[in-house]
Amino acid sequence: MAGGGEHRVVIVGGGFGGMLAARGLAKAPCKVTLIDRRNFHLFQPLLYQVATGALSPANIAAPLRSILRRNKNTNVVLGEVDGFDLVAKTVKLRDGAAVPFDTLVVATGATHTYFGHDDWAGLAPGLKTIEDATEIRRRILSAFERAEREPDPKARERLLTFVVVGGGPTGVEMAGAISELGRLTMRNDFRAFNPRDTRIILVEGQARVLGTFHEKLSAYAINALHKLGVECRLDCHVVGIREGRVEVKADRPGAEVTAIPTETVIWAAGVKASGLGRLLADAIGGVTTDRPGRVAVNPDCTVGGRPDVFVIGDLASLKGVDGKPLPGVAPVAMQQGEYVAGVITARLKGDTSPARPFKYWDKGSMATIGSAKAVAETNGLRLTGYIAWLTWLFIHILYLARFENRVLVLWQWFFNYVTGNRAARLITGESAGRPEDPHRGVPPGEAVVKA
Amino acid sequence: MAGGGEHRVVIVGGGFGGMLAARGLAKAPCKVTLIDRRNFHLFQPLLYQVATGALSPANIAAPLRSILRRNKNTNVVLGEVDGFDLVAKTVKLRDGAAVPFDTLVVATGATHTYFGHDDWAGLAPGLKTIEDATEIRRRILSAFERAEREPDPKARERLLTFVVVGGGPTGVEMAGAISELGRLTMRNDFRAFNPRDTRIILVEGQARVLGTFHEKLSAYAINALHKLGVECRLDCHVVGIREGRVEVKADRPGAEVTAIPTETVIWAAGVKASGLGRLLADAIGGVTTDRPGRVAVNPDCTVGGRPDVFVIGDLASLKGVDGKPLPGVAPVAMQQGEYVAGVITARLKGDTSPARPFKYWDKGSMATIGSAKAVAETNGLRLTGYIAWLTWLFIHILYLARFENRVLVLWQWFFNYVTGNRAARLITGESAGRPEDPHRGVPPGEAVVKA
Repeated sequence: MAGGGEHRVVIVGGGFGGMLAARGLAKAPCKVTLIDRRNFHLFQPLLYQVATGALSPANIAAPLRSILRRNKNTNVVLGEVDGFDLVAKTVKLRDGAAVPFDTLVVATGATHTYFGHDDWAGLAPGLKTIEDATEIRRRILSAFERAEREPDPKARERLLTFVVVGGGPTGVEMAGAISELGRLTMRNDFRAFNPRDTRIILVEGQARVLGTFHEKLSAYAINALHKLGVECRLDCHVVGIREGRVEVKADRPGAEVTAIPTETVIWAAGVKASGLGRLLADAIGGVTTDRPGRVAVNPDCTVGGRPDVFVIGDLASLKGVDGKPLPGVAPVAMQQGEYVAGVITARLKGDTSPARPFKYWDKGSMATIGSAKAVAETNGLRLTGYIAWLTWLFIHILYLARFENRVLVLWQWFFNYVTGNRAARLITGESAGRPEDPHRGVPPGEAVVKA
Repeated sequence: MAGGGEHRVVIVGGGFGGMLAARGLAKAPCKVTLIDRRNFHLFQPLLYQVATGALSPANIAAPLRSILRRNKNTNVVLGEVDGFDLVAKTVKLRDGAAVPFDTLVVATGATHTYFGHDDWAGLAPGLKTIEDATEIRRRILSAFERAEREPDPKARERLLTFVVVGGGPTGVEMAGAISELGRLTMRNDFRAFNPRDTRIILVEGQARVLGTFHEKLSAYAINALHKLGVECRLDCHVVGIREGRVEVKADRPGAEVTAIPTETVIWAAGVKASGLGRLLADAIGGVTTDRPGRVAVNPDCTVGGRPDVFVIGDLASLKGVDGKPLPGVAPVAMQQGEYVAGVITARLKGDTSPARPFKYWDKGSMATIGSAKAVAETNGLRLTGYIAWLTWLFIHILYLARFENRVLVLWQWFFNYVTGNRAARLITGESAGRPEDPHRGVPPGEAVVKA
């Protein structure tokens, strides 16, 4: 796969970390191979907008080949990695192929976990892939369609109740977006019920939403969500998800289990690292992974005693200068991608001195709550409301891959902002033609087989 | 479902015919119910652009509810019709519901047929639904991805060969678009082969492509396709489709069956009317359907002796003033939709005189061959090349539902025209993560289960 005696860098994963690492090596004297099982880079922070019909999948996904087309030293391989041979120094693909490397960068990120309740997956899909987003979109829109035709008020109420599990940025953004979809976008669309009857319940285990933000911002978010008609159940855990209902239990002694009748549950809670982390740790030996399965890395993002193996992004477990573990967010992955590209380039140029440790520059974090409302904080400075939303909008457009998508997304946001419309409200996929089919109890395997 | 003694008009199908009929009845003194199994109106003429990654599904689909949101007398029902009771005057839905009507308009259109070879469906998907388009997109893009990793030159050649069956507008447009996708859009994307090696073969049973157009335009199209590297096999029929090859036979005595090695076949040949046509004809009794299954209608688009039942669009079989059967194209469906809306409105206003027969105003027809090339003819006048393409572009933007989509599509076309880029090049759906999986031999049922 590599030409001549050229140094071969293999990057596994085309997310923020892997993509930035590949870009950083564009001019380095090496042969780069980027392996991903998808043919596109996905801008996950905007996935919830696909799930709520505001954007189309292609607006937030850019083909890896076209992102890297000008990197003549780079090869994109569409394939699924299922192991590592650190003696032969190859990456094993599911189809049996072995990709040899001199330096390996693993950046396969994380997915969601149901804390051992994998049987919930079919009933409460998470939001990590394009397929997840279009499946959630299908379920939300189908629930409204079924409500329009449901004569029984109780059943209709259940169809118009949406439960979002997890009060982090994704959960807050989903809850706000579903509310606007039902109450604003589709306000004139139905005849049998009033869209204002739409009920959105956000279930969060902690005492506040957006737990990683300052209390003031959490309070603002709760208030903003309330204005959007989103009920927040704090200090409250999901103890069961069954057909037609979610069972929650308040986080205090003697609390009863209460059932929320609903047909649509969205999982925005647990995060679990890609299984390749554990595989890699075992292959190297003596390397630990933390509870979510992230690989403990050295300060220079190498793993164990292997200077030729890097792990970055959501798959890596590394403490920041403050001693706190770095958060699993895009900026960390991007900076680590650029960092390892620099370390590798320096080595290739003969620099034998040990690399300076990776240092995360925290530019701050933000979350939106419906259109025109958001919270943002960047060391010390805290923003809320319209100004925070504009900041959020600007940053997200800025980091979106491809100029074309920036224009498309901006236009659709502008249109959405002015008219409240969301153009991508399509019910597509397997049982799309059958709104009356209960979509409940879809086994996990099938849950991703949607348009 | 209807209020009081109000006259109930039920329209089955939200395509061009059904949508125009519903719009035409917006101010009529009746209660309108539009039933469709999808929640959106699809602009089928641009489906091939979704299949080749130029546009996103949502760009050519508009939610029926938002199209008709201002028609306060109109009810949109998401459901699948599976029969008619013309005595009780109800439309039967798959979920058991019965929708009563006083006047019925059936406009469920047509789909493609394999002329009795239904086993070809999985190997050669047709292009009628969003799912068809994203599945074809997945197959085309996956073929290029697999070619990039295929060491065997013969196998790679097979992966880079695309066969389009049928030389009508859809076939011609698909062939041209695949050629531009491989040779222009992705020209810098691959390392293991030269995109110019992409081979596109258009198989047509007649002596020329675009058979409904003037000979001069057919000749122009052949020439334009040739310049795009598309080989046209005329007077040639497909006699077999198997894993890895298409078998064709020239249309002359003693011709041999020749096999074209390919992994990707697209079906743009036969057209078959919706099965509801036959069901309706039987329910009425004494009504004939033609070979493609279209219902023979009276000059006013009513069926048999039933003045209260209309069939329009691709599902209707009606002769024009010239005695030739009207073509199965969008303009006929749209004009018939407006026409029946007028007939129904007149009746509701007490007009008892027999309706004047439907008269199709043929504004002409057009087809594009890659960007900046097209053919168009409108009675007598014939256009080719750039000017025809601009006409095509203008007309299509004009008829596209929703202002927002017009802007989105125009922008993407502009960008595509200037840079050759196609933003929506996503491999999504079931086996998306597994490019090495042979996608061949997918049973028809599964063939639509894609993102």
